Amino acid sequence: MRVLGIDPGLAITGYAVLEDGDEDGSGDGSVAVLEAGVIRTPADEPLPQRLRTIFEEVETLIGEYRPDALAVEEVFFNQNVTTAMSVSQARGVVLLAGSRIERIESYTPLEVKRQICGYGRAKKTQMQAMVRRLLKLKELPKPDDAADALAVALCHLLRERSGLRAYALPRARRRR
Amino acid sequence: MRVLGIDPGLAITGYAVLEDGDEDGSGDGSVAVLEAGVIRTPADEPLPQRLRTIFEEVETLIGEYRPDALAVEEVFFNQNVTTAMSVSQARGVVLLAGSRIERIESYTPLEVKRQICGYGRAKKTQMQAMVRRLLKLKELPKPDDAADALAVALCHLLRERSGLRAYALPRARRRR
Repeated sequence: MRVLGIDPGLAITGYAVLEDGDEDGSGDGSVAVLEAGVIRTPADEPLPQRLRTIFEEVETLIGEYRPDALAVEEVFFNQNVTTAMSVSQARGVVLLAGSRIERIESYTPLEVKRQICGYGRAKKTQMQAMVRRLLKLKELPKPDDAADALAVALCHLLRERSGLRAYALPRARRRR
Repeated sequence: MRVLGIDPGLAITGYAVLEDGDEDGSGDGSVAVLEAGVIRTPADEPLPQRLRTIFEEVETLIGEYRPDALAVEEVFFNQNVTTAMSVSQARGVVLLAGSRIERIESYTPLEVKRQICGYGRAKKTQMQAMVRRLLKLKELPKPDDAADALAVALCHLLRERSGLRAYALPRARRRR
């Protein structure tokens, strides 16, 4: 199973593609990071153009990696409505780009933290350390938005595996 | 000049196409309502599919009417963040669908009211009466979302005309 994880944002959208080499449970449990990065849009561009860039880049990723599932982080609302609405617009075009993918799941930041760290109030540094460890990466992709996308993709992948296997990810490999 | 006005929403998106027959100021000042209606998406459909429906319907309208301008209502935030974020996702795909249109403008509900009624705190009934009167319509399109889209399109059109001509719309005609 391939999962495309997206952490949407207007200025910067993180993405990551994970491949679970162990979907039938018979393999070695390895998970490969096929891709991780960010889509940036310049603040001085008109909003519709910025949304088009995000849409097209996500479409390109989907065309290239043909993921079986899309895992998108829910917009976290922390007092700033303007930001929440701006991120939601970006999230709308991400979901649109992925609308042909069979499985599309949304995860709140709380759910991602709970799935990966075991509790929803984990700090960012704890989360990042856990993602790095679970995926056996020497270092996390930069910037944080790419790592966040990796986390949401991993969250989905762990959910898809049985609860018992959730933390068992031996011998992860990394293609890039 | 043709204006496509959109009042975005996830469950119901209003749209209206206005044609200003008087863009050089030399004509009779007529404005035609070429189209007004709504795009509905069922609540039991997955979000990405609902966003795709909105996107495709707006694309179809643009292909059919080739508007010179797109006027989109800003999301009105009234305490309910969840609704605001849901509307913002719809708004994102509307802006994406319109991203090839040369002029794209956003108007807040306040700006629309101020432009059409002369003050920003006008009631809905006052707004509707004014839109009906300015466009010389026997009745407004139903439901309200279609009338709201008509209002935002008219707001843009009035803004484009000079301030002096803003309320001068003699002999409006209606094609449908």
